[in-house]
Amino acid sequence: MAQVSLGELAVRFGLALRGDPARRVGSVATLDAAAADQVAFLADPRLADRLTGCRAGAVVLHPSSVESCPVDCLIADNPHAAFARIAAVLHPLPAAPAGVHPTAVVAADAVVHPSAHVGPQSVIGARARIGSRVVIGPGCVVGEDAVLDDDVRLVARVTVLERVEIGARSVLHPGSVVGSEGFGYAPEGRAWIHVPQVGTVRIGADVEIGANTTIDRGALGDTVIGEGVKIDNLVQIGHNCSIGAHSALAGCVGLAGSSHVGARCRLGGGVGLAGHLTLCDDVTVTGYTLVTGDIREPGVYSGGVPAEPAADWRRVVGRLKRIDSLARRVSALERGAVPDEPA
Amino acid sequence: MAQVSLGELAVRFGLALRGDPARRVGSVATLDAAAADQVAFLADPRLADRLTGCRAGAVVLHPSSVESCPVDCLIADNPHAAFARIAAVLHPLPAAPAGVHPTAVVAADAVVHPSAHVGPQSVIGARARIGSRVVIGPGCVVGEDAVLDDDVRLVARVTVLERVEIGARSVLHPGSVVGSEGFGYAPEGRAWIHVPQVGTVRIGADVEIGANTTIDRGALGDTVIGEGVKIDNLVQIGHNCSIGAHSALAGCVGLAGSSHVGARCRLGGGVGLAGHLTLCDDVTVTGYTLVTGDIREPGVYSGGVPAEPAADWRRVVGRLKRIDSLARRVSALERGAVPDEPA
Amino acid sequence: MAQVSLGELAVRFGLALRGDPARRVGSVATLDAAAADQVAFLADPRLADRLTGCRAGAVVLHPSSVESCPVDCLIADNPHAAFARIAAVLHPLPAAPAGVHPTAVVAADAVVHPSAHVGPQSVIGARARIGSRVVIGPGCVVGEDAVLDDDVRLVARVTVLERVEIGARSVLHPGSVVGSEGFGYAPEGRAWIHVPQVGTVRIGADVEIGANTTIDRGALGDTVIGEGVKIDNLVQIGHNCSIGAHSALAGCVGLAGSSHVGARCRLGGGVGLAGHLTLCDDVTVTGYTLVTGDIREPGVYSGGVPAEPAADWRRVVGRLKRIDSLARRVSALERGAVPDEPA
Repeated sequence: MAQVSLGELAVRFGLALRGDPARRVGSVATLDAAAADQVAFLADPRLADRLTGCRAGAVVLHPSSVESCPVDCLIADNPHAAFARIAAVLHPLPAAPAGVHPTAVVAADAVVHPSAHVGPQSVIGARARIGSRVVIGPGCVVGEDAVLDDDVRLVARVTVLERVEIGARSVLHPGSVVGSEGFGYAPEGRAWIHVPQVGTVRIGADVEIGANTTIDRGALGDTVIGEGVKIDNLVQIGHNCSIGAHSALAGCVGLAGSSHVGARCRLGGGVGLAGHLTLCDDVTVTGYTLVTGDIREPGVYSGGVPAEPAADWRRVVGRLKRIDSLARRVSALERGAVPDEPA
Repeated sequence: MAQVSLGELAVRFGLALRGDPARRVGSVATLDAAAADQVAFLADPRLADRLTGCRAGAVVLHPSSVESCPVDCLIADNPHAAFARIAAVLHPLPAAPAGVHPTAVVAADAVVHPSAHVGPQSVIGARARIGSRVVIGPGCVVGEDAVLDDDVRLVARVTVLERVEIGARSVLHPGSVVGSEGFGYAPEGRAWIHVPQVGTVRIGADVEIGANTTIDRGALGDTVIGEGVKIDNLVQIGHNCSIGAHSALAGCVGLAGSSHVGARCRLGGGVGLAGHLTLCDDVTVTGYTLVTGDIREPGVYSGGVPAEPAADWRRVVGRLKRIDSLARRVSALERGAVPDEPA
Repeated sequence: MAQVSLGELAVRFGLALRGDPARRVGSVATLDAAAADQVAFLADPRLADRLTGCRAGAVVLHPSSVESCPVDCLIADNPHAAFARIAAVLHPLPAAPAGVHPTAVVAADAVVHPSAHVGPQSVIGARARIGSRVVIGPGCVVGEDAVLDDDVRLVARVTVLERVEIGARSVLHPGSVVGSEGFGYAPEGRAWIHVPQVGTVRIGADVEIGANTTIDRGALGDTVIGEGVKIDNLVQIGHNCSIGAHSALAGCVGLAGSSHVGARCRLGGGVGLAGHLTLCDDVTVTGYTLVTGDIREPGVYSGGVPAEPAADWRRVVGRLKRIDSLARRVSALERGAVPDEPA
């Protein structure tokens, strides 16, 4: 693990330092657990009392928290982002030496930059292009004509299918599948005729795609993931979806085909989009919500119902199923009548 | 990419042609984007005004749309199905040469038809039988005694476990797992005893199984997927489920163990079946619906609640949680009393 | 398949036998299907009439069912658990010979016990430690410094990332990913800064992890799965979650980061936990329920709404969306007024 001085960190990330610039730190930890050679952070100045008793080598915090801090401080307007950058220095990724592992199978006409790493048991298809410093971990499959821009990282056992394009610095986590065939069938009599999916997937720069997430290629035209989009694990993106820059999708989200998500949207865990709909920019959808139509105004949208004790909930559901009758009874009361139907 | 004349397409698929049989086309595209060497389609005659300005080489359309079409037409009663077949001709799958890649590991007593393709880094277990023209893409695992009928295609990184049987022409997309052990445990004291899952999975002909979908083997007896069933990505099929012919399951569907789905059913995205229940033939369940009991009548069933602005929804949930009280208050009003409990 | 006498089974598992100790059985089957060389079971004495006509070699059942049984009986207080153990004897796992397959890639400084099996196309990272009798199936990836305790089994195409620890006898099913990076980002301007996830995942003994399930490593600190926990397919466990001993999570469950589940909890299929919350011990949550806050009392909790015919459900949803208005109308009636707003 690297050892770095607070002074170096302050200079490198443009932070003010209150404390000893020569103090060396080697890793990050929580406020509670951090020892004298570790860096912690406090994002929210309102929680400054959590600094009491802190024994970290340094805490990354907001200027307004400095007074409360018993140890050295690295001072940042955005402590969480500064901490993230420091953590990346102290916890570098495992080394991935340039070159192709002898067990990898690389097509003769694939173009792999000499600085790229192609790990064991990986397979690179014909005419694929692999950029500078790309890391392809063990057991990955890259299809024919796929393009991985510089510094892309496929962690392990990732599948990138034919013609998919992935922007610089994007990271694909284990088991993710990009460019699988969309779910497109034409009904004919009682059966389904497969409709070839001739589009592909274009992924921007600085995207992350979670473990076992699946992104289907377009039917006609492409599925498009904008730059800086972050997608968690076990997310399903149907064919011809588009996601605007810097949107974030939490785990288990499902986008049916031709769902269009704007920029800077946030979809909570388990959110479902019904397809053939558009969310404008800056829409937040809270967890477990189903969206069935366009959303044209930025804001927060919800549809999930929090858990209740089961007996209470059964009563609620029973009443809910008869809410139409209940409403009609209220109308009758408003008209001065008592309806036939009992409670 | 293949170049084919409209005349050849008309003859091959039994379509009427209005236009130049010698015109050559090489790919498919959307109505808006199609150029003079491309084929587009219009499925719905009510949208015939979309043909205005079309510059495609030909449009596959219904007889009633012919008059509205400014370019050559291939005329079909089912334009979408005809288009699907034309697209398959113009966009053939990547070649998969017969033979076993030198990096594949094939058990000595597995039987692989000479016309089959076994891709790099794949593993074929003892006594597995691989039919004619089967394509096993890179990084797949086929377990002991598994049977893949003719023309099956495992795209890449597919796992087919021991004794699983897959019918002719079925396609398994990347990351899918067929034959994993079911979730079967006997409670004993505070712990769970694993119950060996000794059944298997039998998949019919012409089935598609989406990326990262999982299908568990039966506990006793088998999990059975009927012919022509189409299953999207990230679907979970528990042990001892059965799905009737030509049913379609959209992404993120979950079937708990011993869910039985009839023929020609359609389950929307995120639908959940609670297990130990039966859906009759021709049932459609819309997205994000939970089914907890048998459905005995064909038809459409729902349970999802579309999103609302969060503030409105919080009010709805608050009222919903007190709906039992609300209903009692209405009953009291009907009896002429004003209840104690305030609004 | 092994052939064992009823006498041997009775002695081995401490069961009473009513019948012929020399009768040999070779496999298990359902009560209906079992033949004279097969063992079936009846867990629930209330269903003893199902024994009528049974032709099994023996039935594992509760003492109170013995009188109803027309064939030999193995008598157990917990017939399901006894049956599970018998099934494991009659249906042993496929053999996995000790040693490293020549196509596997094992780092020079990894420590693999001589009794372990490392299957074809697997990759073992630097300094990983693989215990006695561990079985690593085909196509698995084990990261640097990972530790697999004795008798762990990775079935096939499993990914265990760096520093993850897995307890004795745990089983990871195909496509599962343990130790993927958590979904941690710091917002900065319009973009997201990745926060390195420096924790890991610690999994206890006797855990099962389903096919294509994903478990993220901790951000700071670890994600912890207690002993005996059973996790089904396509489950997502976010960073820094903890799950207490012997809890069971059904398919498609999603735990957002820092969800803490107590011991002996049961989460039904599709349950979602919103993160930064705690469930006490012995909580059951029924399928498709969203939990958004702490649960402090053992018991059963629900939130799912069962399906309705779509037309009825549309009426329910329409009324539900106006429930706030309905409640206000009831209040007005209680005050003796008829509100302005019509039904």
